Amino acid sequence: MLQKQVISSWLQNLQNNICSELEKLDTQSTFVEDAWQRVGGGGGKTRVIENGRVIEKGGVNFSEVWGNLSPQIAQKLGLQNEQNPTLAPYFYATGVSIVLHPINPFMPIIHMNIRYFETNEQVYWFGGGIDVTPHYIDTEQARFFHTQLKNTCDAHNIAYYPAFKKWADDYFFITHRNETRGIGGIFFDRLQHTSSFSQAQLYAFWQAIGNLFAPTYAYFVQKNAQLPYNLNHQKWQYIRRSRYAEFNLVYDKGTQFGLETQGRTESILMSLPPTAQWHYNHQPAPNTPEYSTLNLLKKDVDWVNIS
Amino acid sequence: MLQKQVISSWLQNLQNNICSELEKLDTQSTFVEDAWQRVGGGGGKTRVIENGRVIEKGGVNFSEVWGNLSPQIAQKLGLQNEQNPTLAPYFYATGVSIVLHPINPFMPIIHMNIRYFETNEQVYWFGGGIDVTPHYIDTEQARFFHTQLKNTCDAHNIAYYPAFKKWADDYFFITHRNETRGIGGIFFDRLQHTSSFSQAQLYAFWQAIGNLFAPTYAYFVQKNAQLPYNLNHQKWQYIRRSRYAEFNLVYDKGTQFGLETQGRTESILMSLPPTAQWHYNHQPAPNTPEYSTLNLLKKDVDWVNIS
Repeated sequence: MLQKQVISSWLQNLQNNICSELEKLDTQSTFVEDAWQRVGGGGGKTRVIENGRVIEKGGVNFSEVWGNLSPQIAQKLGLQNEQNPTLAPYFYATGVSIVLHPINPFMPIIHMNIRYFETNEQVYWFGGGIDVTPHYIDTEQARFFHTQLKNTCDAHNIAYYPAFKKWADDYFFITHRNETRGIGGIFFDRLQHTSSFSQAQLYAFWQAIGNLFAPTYAYFVQKNAQLPYNLNHQKWQYIRRSRYAEFNLVYDKGTQFGLETQGRTESILMSLPPTAQWHYNHQPAPNTPEYSTLNLLKKDVDWVNIS
Repeated sequence: MLQKQVISSWLQNLQNNICSELEKLDTQSTFVEDAWQRVGGGGGKTRVIENGRVIEKGGVNFSEVWGNLSPQIAQKLGLQNEQNPTLAPYFYATGVSIVLHPINPFMPIIHMNIRYFETNEQVYWFGGGIDVTPHYIDTEQARFFHTQLKNTCDAHNIAYYPAFKKWADDYFFITHRNETRGIGGIFFDRLQHTSSFSQAQLYAFWQAIGNLFAPTYAYFVQKNAQLPYNLNHQKWQYIRRSRYAEFNLVYDKGTQFGLETQGRTESILMSLPPTAQWHYNHQPAPNTPEYSTLNLLKKDVDWVNIS
């Protein structure tokens, strides 16, 4: 079995590479690091970039934490000890989590997270995903993004893309708005080896998702970061960002888990947008780009084949 | 026992009076009404004001809904039928709920809610409260506000103010920030008559709280709405508003109940601020008004006697 130190080192290396690539793309701002320690064990490196040329606010965070799960959290995760439910099981969790809010409304918000979780030498899982939240949906770019994800998944397991695309649709759903957060992507959790798919194969897939982030971001920057926009586009961006905040604060399991386990609040909530607006009952007029975008924020859109 | 129609009529009248008073204070904008129906029974009148002279965005909402509680919600409220837990109990709920986000950063955000809940002819309760969230705490105004609340409570029951002030401190607490939402006020729920305190007496107290809102708002407008401010004050206002959004989306029971029971989203989320900002790890410099405010956002401050 893989050593957790190997996984954690690989993640720190990924954080370094992604920050370096993003600084090259942004050309104006650089990341500032806050290293933090967790009282119960472990810590992390939060890296935040603000007021760049491309990125208005974003974070690329690494964490590696361990300790004993409270009985409540253990029960939520289905990890309570059957014989003794009051026993707090040991856990180890490490991951990289990214959210980038761009300045340009035609540039999407992008989120990536890959994580590894272990409770003892026998139980572990991989989780992660990449998803995109455009303020304005460009179907060509959506098709390209999903095709890249599908190709990456297919190279490892042909069953992954359809299953994990659906998982993202279901996960990144704002029930009270009856909207998806964006055009989705892939989401997976609790991936464990099977008789036909080894841990090494899982790890290779998971690494491939991590490695896909920087070129994906470069693609969107090249397509959108310099497009001209006006105050109306920006207002719509602020409205879409408020939906992003609603999702993260009401539904996101990572955010909830972080806040409930007394994680570092500023690292958890780095995902929230720099400026957001709530207008009462805002409805875009028919036959506008805003209206078209809203009509595409649905589950089960076949992005790989959209025209 | 009081007829629920009597209570509901009184609430609609209160909504009318408060809207009329607020329009007189604002002098620029007026309320726009959306009447809505609830599929399961009942409906409401959402009244929203935007881009006024004093109020940037606010709502004064009346609702009156009824139907059968889902077993999950009934369990949350401790109302499940002991003999048959799958039986959905009948409920009736009516209330007025107000949140006003002012333009001027020296003017506080104010929230008021009064509600009446009934499950059958024997079980009912009153709930409500008023609380204030200043962007900048003025201790003289905080003292005045709490003194008004205390005097109103004391006229009905000497035990109310200390109990309900503490309840507000505990309720309006943002655990992950270790901050109260503002300077609190009073909060109470499930008020039922006792051998020494009749339903009519409860009702009179509850009405007094509703009637306190308009003069309280007038006081704050007179003190603050015309004070000069700059972009730094406004930035701080936007940061404080993001904490308001965090509280309402993560902790507020009314918001959660509304979203979980498929209430009208735009009426529930009218409480969210027009513009909010999240800056990574923003810390006000020592010896600034922002720093002083942050240091007063604590439970158990004795506002009535603060100097």
